[in-house]
Amino acid sequence: MMQPLIINLAPTGMIPTRAQTPHVPLTSTEIADEALACAKLGVSMVHLHARDVDGLPTTDSRLFADIVSKIRTVNSEVIITATTSGRKVPDVEQRASSLYLDGDLRPDMASLTLGSMNFATEASMNSPATIMRLAEIMQNKGIRPELEVFDLGMINFAKILIDKGLISAPYYFNILLGNPATAQASMLHLATMVNELPAGSIWAVAGIGRFQTRANALGVVLGDGVRVGLEDNLWWDQERTQLATNAQLIGRVTAQAQALGRPIASALEVRQRLDLQIW
Amino acid sequence: MMQPLIINLAPTGMIPTRAQTPHVPLTSTEIADEALACAKLGVSMVHLHARDVDGLPTTDSRLFADIVSKIRTVNSEVIITATTSGRKVPDVEQRASSLYLDGDLRPDMASLTLGSMNFATEASMNSPATIMRLAEIMQNKGIRPELEVFDLGMINFAKILIDKGLISAPYYFNILLGNPATAQASMLHLATMVNELPAGSIWAVAGIGRFQTRANALGVVLGDGVRVGLEDNLWWDQERTQLATNAQLIGRVTAQAQALGRPIASALEVRQRLDLQIW
Repeated sequence: MMQPLIINLAPTGMIPTRAQTPHVPLTSTEIADEALACAKLGVSMVHLHARDVDGLPTTDSRLFADIVSKIRTVNSEVIITATTSGRKVPDVEQRASSLYLDGDLRPDMASLTLGSMNFATEASMNSPATIMRLAEIMQNKGIRPELEVFDLGMINFAKILIDKGLISAPYYFNILLGNPATAQASMLHLATMVNELPAGSIWAVAGIGRFQTRANALGVVLGDGVRVGLEDNLWWDQERTQLATNAQLIGRVTAQAQALGRPIASALEVRQRLDLQIW
Repeated sequence: MMQPLIINLAPTGMIPTRAQTPHVPLTSTEIADEALACAKLGVSMVHLHARDVDGLPTTDSRLFADIVSKIRTVNSEVIITATTSGRKVPDVEQRASSLYLDGDLRPDMASLTLGSMNFATEASMNSPATIMRLAEIMQNKGIRPELEVFDLGMINFAKILIDKGLISAPYYFNILLGNPATAQASMLHLATMVNELPAGSIWAVAGIGRFQTRANALGVVLGDGVRVGLEDNLWWDQERTQLATNAQLIGRVTAQAQALGRPIASALEVRQRLDLQIW
């Protein structure tokens, strides 16, 4: 039997706005409600970005804490991943603000993008020093990184972090394909990247924009999991005629898994595989 | 018979200092003399960075013009490539300063790094807008880009530039391997990258630091050429006991080509293959 599929939901991200889609959750209540509703659909992990009262990305950890609290009051099993994105905020300590939440508010995991790169219209900076500092904070806080890799070299940098003792197994890699300036959603690119993963890796596949469907499908067939959601893609169809909901995007993934007879991992199972605290 | 091998010399770069090695040419006279001496050893193309009176990288185009003038007075065939590196200078027009040199001072080619990435200790920013602006200036000036690609996605970005009409065949790709945070000097990484090159590509292989020898060797055996020189690597041996000279590094490449019976391309031949002006 295939290993149960890990579904990681990224419902919000840095970029989507209410003007672009009515379906993106923006307030703390909306984000927590979306996470809780989607957990019932098979999501074991939620990758979260907080937004401020204007709907803009914020590193104010009080807002992140509010989301965590609202989720865990109802469901303490679903795994909570905090973004440390530097797309809007370069300062490393500000990027790490949510990692300092303690006790019941501590995130289980946090994103760690393993290099600098270009997105469609802007550069995204994650210098070696920034990455190492974020890894160190996560290690000190007992937070497991979501290792975001966009191209071959970022996996090589993961090996450097392993050599430095800054990250430890089991490694959770999120392989993101289809961004214009990094690896594409092709079999060969994915195969070459997976071939480089260190032993003890658990890997999910995500796709940017119109490549989300194909990337997720590769994850369902070949990987340990997928990352899906409106953070990476707003649309249901390739022709971009219909805006998607997070629930619809999850439904496409679970329908494929079901067709293959592949079970969906529970949050508790994923906590065990990733050696995360059971709250 | 194998196609004649294109040897591109990068004698100086942004980083090497006199304190690190006595062999790096820094003044305009030293750089021009090195280019001229190495042209006699089989170099058909020189990739040049100007340095100021303190030996530091400069975008002052008068210094670059001085180098060009000193080279072309003696040898008008060797192909001159100007850096547009943004490692120290973010402003795009300042990075492009040498591209505005006219008449006999116009460089034949200029570097165009097709993405942002991390080097060993710092991020290097080349935003999509910066890359497109540099490509546009080169196109307007009749300067062919040296397309520097460090990972899979940068080749994808070249295809986007082709679609936008900002670069045209023949494409000269310099595939740089062995930087910690981008593609490595492995057969699989190189094969996957070469597989993505657009039709009409001419490709060289360069290696960073200790990977220069292997990367160059792959270029001699499989590629259209190599880029070699102290910009990318200061040492003769893997154990780093002996500092290299540019001439020695070129000699290792030409000796391999000779052993394989592969001829070395003349500057005139390369001008014809790359459709460059004959001065």
